[in-house]
Amino acid sequence: RFGIGYVEDRSETTIVRGPGADGLNGTADDVLARSTAQTDDVILVSRFRLNIDGIAETDGGVRFEGRVRLQADEDASNGEANSAGLNGARFSVIYGGLRVDAGNVAGSFDNLANYYGNEVGLELFAGQYSGVDYNFLAYSSTGSGANAVFFQYSVGDFSFGASYDQAQATVIGAGGTTSTTVDADRWDISATYTFNNITAAVAYGQTDAGVAGVSDPSLTVLTLGGEWGDFSGTLFVADDATQVASTDGTAWGLSAAYNLGAATTLLFTYGDGNASADTQQVAIGAIYDLGGGASLRGGIGRNDCDSCASDTIVADFGAQFNF
Amino acid sequence: RFGIGYVEDRSETTIVRGPGADGLNGTADDVLARSTAQTDDVILVSRFRLNIDGIAETDGGVRFEGRVRLQADEDASNGEANSAGLNGARFSVIYGGLRVDAGNVAGSFDNLANYYGNEVGLELFAGQYSGVDYNFLAYSSTGSGANAVFFQYSVGDFSFGASYDQAQATVIGAGGTTSTTVDADRWDISATYTFNNITAAVAYGQTDAGVAGVSDPSLTVLTLGGEWGDFSGTLFVADDATQVASTDGTAWGLSAAYNLGAATTLLFTYGDGNASADTQQVAIGAIYDLGGGASLRGGIGRNDCDSCASDTIVADFGAQFNF
Amino acid sequence: RFGIGYVEDRSETTIVRGPGADGLNGTADDVLARSTAQTDDVILVSRFRLNIDGIAETDGGVRFEGRVRLQADEDASNGEANSAGLNGARFSVIYGGLRVDAGNVAGSFDNLANYYGNEVGLELFAGQYSGVDYNFLAYSSTGSGANAVFFQYSVGDFSFGASYDQAQATVIGAGGTTSTTVDADRWDISATYTFNNITAAVAYGQTDAGVAGVSDPSLTVLTLGGEWGDFSGTLFVADDATQVASTDGTAWGLSAAYNLGAATTLLFTYGDGNASADTQQVAIGAIYDLGGGASLRGGIGRNDCDSCASDTIVADFGAQFNF
Repeated sequence: RFGIGYVEDRSETTIVRGPGADGLNGTADDVLARSTAQTDDVILVSRFRLNIDGIAETDGGVRFEGRVRLQADEDASNGEANSAGLNGARFSVIYGGLRVDAGNVAGSFDNLANYYGNEVGLELFAGQYSGVDYNFLAYSSTGSGANAVFFQYSVGDFSFGASYDQAQATVIGAGGTTSTTVDADRWDISATYTFNNITAAVAYGQTDAGVAGVSDPSLTVLTLGGEWGDFSGTLFVADDATQVASTDGTAWGLSAAYNLGAATTLLFTYGDGNASADTQQVAIGAIYDLGGGASLRGGIGRNDCDSCASDTIVADFGAQFNF
Repeated sequence: RFGIGYVEDRSETTIVRGPGADGLNGTADDVLARSTAQTDDVILVSRFRLNIDGIAETDGGVRFEGRVRLQADEDASNGEANSAGLNGARFSVIYGGLRVDAGNVAGSFDNLANYYGNEVGLELFAGQYSGVDYNFLAYSSTGSGANAVFFQYSVGDFSFGASYDQAQATVIGAGGTTSTTVDADRWDISATYTFNNITAAVAYGQTDAGVAGVSDPSLTVLTLGGEWGDFSGTLFVADDATQVASTDGTAWGLSAAYNLGAATTLLFTYGDGNASADTQQVAIGAIYDLGGGASLRGGIGRNDCDSCASDTIVADFGAQFNF
Repeated sequence: RFGIGYVEDRSETTIVRGPGADGLNGTADDVLARSTAQTDDVILVSRFRLNIDGIAETDGGVRFEGRVRLQADEDASNGEANSAGLNGARFSVIYGGLRVDAGNVAGSFDNLANYYGNEVGLELFAGQYSGVDYNFLAYSSTGSGANAVFFQYSVGDFSFGASYDQAQATVIGAGGTTSTTVDADRWDISATYTFNNITAAVAYGQTDAGVAGVSDPSLTVLTLGGEWGDFSGTLFVADDATQVASTDGTAWGLSAAYNLGAATTLLFTYGDGNASADTQQVAIGAIYDLGGGASLRGGIGRNDCDSCASDTIVADFGAQFNF
């Protein structure tokens, strides 16, 4: 997918090497300076994504899968291109309604029905989850990801998920003379129920704070999604306990999509939270299907927060195609 | 493709960590030293190149393409191998005679008919353009490239091209206390006309110097190419305005290819310029077709310039195959 | 392949940035501290490996091949995942019994029949060669490898191999004021003979020490391998002359495999050496074939050496599948 992206007051911070007191470059007193400058608000945005999948099935019907993703994106801060890269591998075992993922996996939130809802824009720049600040286990398309395990079991209208991510964090004491390594394991669970054209899902996750006397950050999410003919919508409520006052509290949002005729879809999303640094996003967008796996997409929205100096207008437009 | 490459007085500069005043490695006073040494003149040269293309076509006949290139080369300075890497993605929209590229694109010069002419050697180490020093927008096989746009329109015997590359440059003041970010946008245009067995092309491009009172560097190129039976040849003239005295001025060159029998092609190329640092290249080479997409290739040439201490003999030989 | 890996007292050293004397992060006196800590002994282990092969065949029947490998592994020190990467390219010319490899090649030892024998475990964590410390030319799956040449010629029951790797090393003098670049070329040769169900192989290789008066490190290996119905076994003897007292001397080992029924294979391997720092490995393992290219694999073993403070128990279990 590629197109044009607009972000109000887009800026970039670069670190440059320059002459020191002697005014000459390339001498021993050269200094590194940090320079923040506004860059072009309108840039070329793009993403190239290719999944490399390996699949094997045993005589007993157990399916093994391996996936590595090759992806290239533009650098959003300055509008230049990035080289393509490879991410961490994900391995799956699938048998009947049971699925176990290992490696660079998506956790219960990332896999939760209607968590993302109808995101808006070519780059999906806005979504109903904007007020959430908890860092849950998610699939990484451009990095190595976590080395975790995710279980999913489906039976009838019910589906259950759970993930566990083993991790450590190293913290250094004042003065730099001592440092300690503490646990930072994460886990989450979810349950989903579908009745007629409505899907309800709930998930809970927490991260080990690693320090005695400090509460573990956690997140609870409830989503509802439904479809009525050409209209579909989602509702989102979350309790975000990051143990940081400016981001803790309730987050909420909703999104809607409406098929206008055969090829056009209109989209709307809204997300907010009651904490001062929670991001509020409102955006509308549209998708026009060109056939053959290609479509034109665009959107315009506004990001803001209670403690932000000013709001930011965001917009994009472009073409997306699958191959 | 792979083979043997020779460069006279090939040398490498390495940075090594070693013991400081205490004569011991691994202590706090370890120093980094720079060591330049001659390496083997004859090394194994190689290139592995794989294009990863994604293609989609809409119901209306518009064609979308995405490309990422996977490439591995040897390290020419020391003869060791490099790991393969991925470059930046290029996206294309093609409809009738119109083509629009976005991302890591080739500009009007890089796409210009007969700009490169008949390059010589397994590694194409010499070409008629050797006197040109202007840095035009080019496709990057091993890096992220520019994030630019290129337009091409063909109608009958005429073809037109244009590209635009948005860029910034950060410059730091003396003392490192101030720095500024200036525009460094590049653009270029071209026109090509084919009559009978002759193709004439002209292109002009310039780069924003970003500083008031400084002229923008620019390049003007005129090429002619023709084919008469087993013989083909190209002529090249350029006005190279880099705003640097040692590389400014006129550059010129020519190249020729002659099919000797069914499988052998002989090649010759010559490039030069009137500025003191312009590289002069003369080289002859040959290609022997083995069938099945494989060929043996080699060449020998001489690089020199007016202000160079001595000339450099370059040669290579090897096999190239397509898959 | 993926599974669970156990290493006794697995530990990781990390370098963290922390506050300096002022007790504040992000200030000029921030320090870097090194922190070594035990991590989880049991981690998720995995490997994703994809060979990207290009093949061409000339009209005369000469076969050209190019290969780049895409591989992702877990980080064994902390149990986190690594992103996938590409290695250096290997090029091959094959004609009749002759094969020439160039680039990131395996040398005579790496290609030697029964050098590795029956390695044990999902991750092949133990082998009969454990007492060998000489650094021979080997194929690199995750790095750029050496840029070398390997020749192999097979005629009847005999097979011969030879490789040559051109390299330099830079050494820095005490005080860091001088440095020199010396040759570090490696070469090796091998011969293999198969009679009935037994294969005998011998190989010799040495590396240029680069300094006058210092003997060149070398390695001599003799292997024997045989198959009798469901049983196969290998014997290994080596003379390891690394020019370092704690690793020089004789190394020996053996391995065995036994097919227990239709789907199960039992494995045993033992390797040792007479030098004080030579690693001794003993391990047993099993493979259970699931069909469709998938299998369950696991093993348990013990690593030790004469000068080691204590031994280390190693074990793993998991699934491997080919696609």
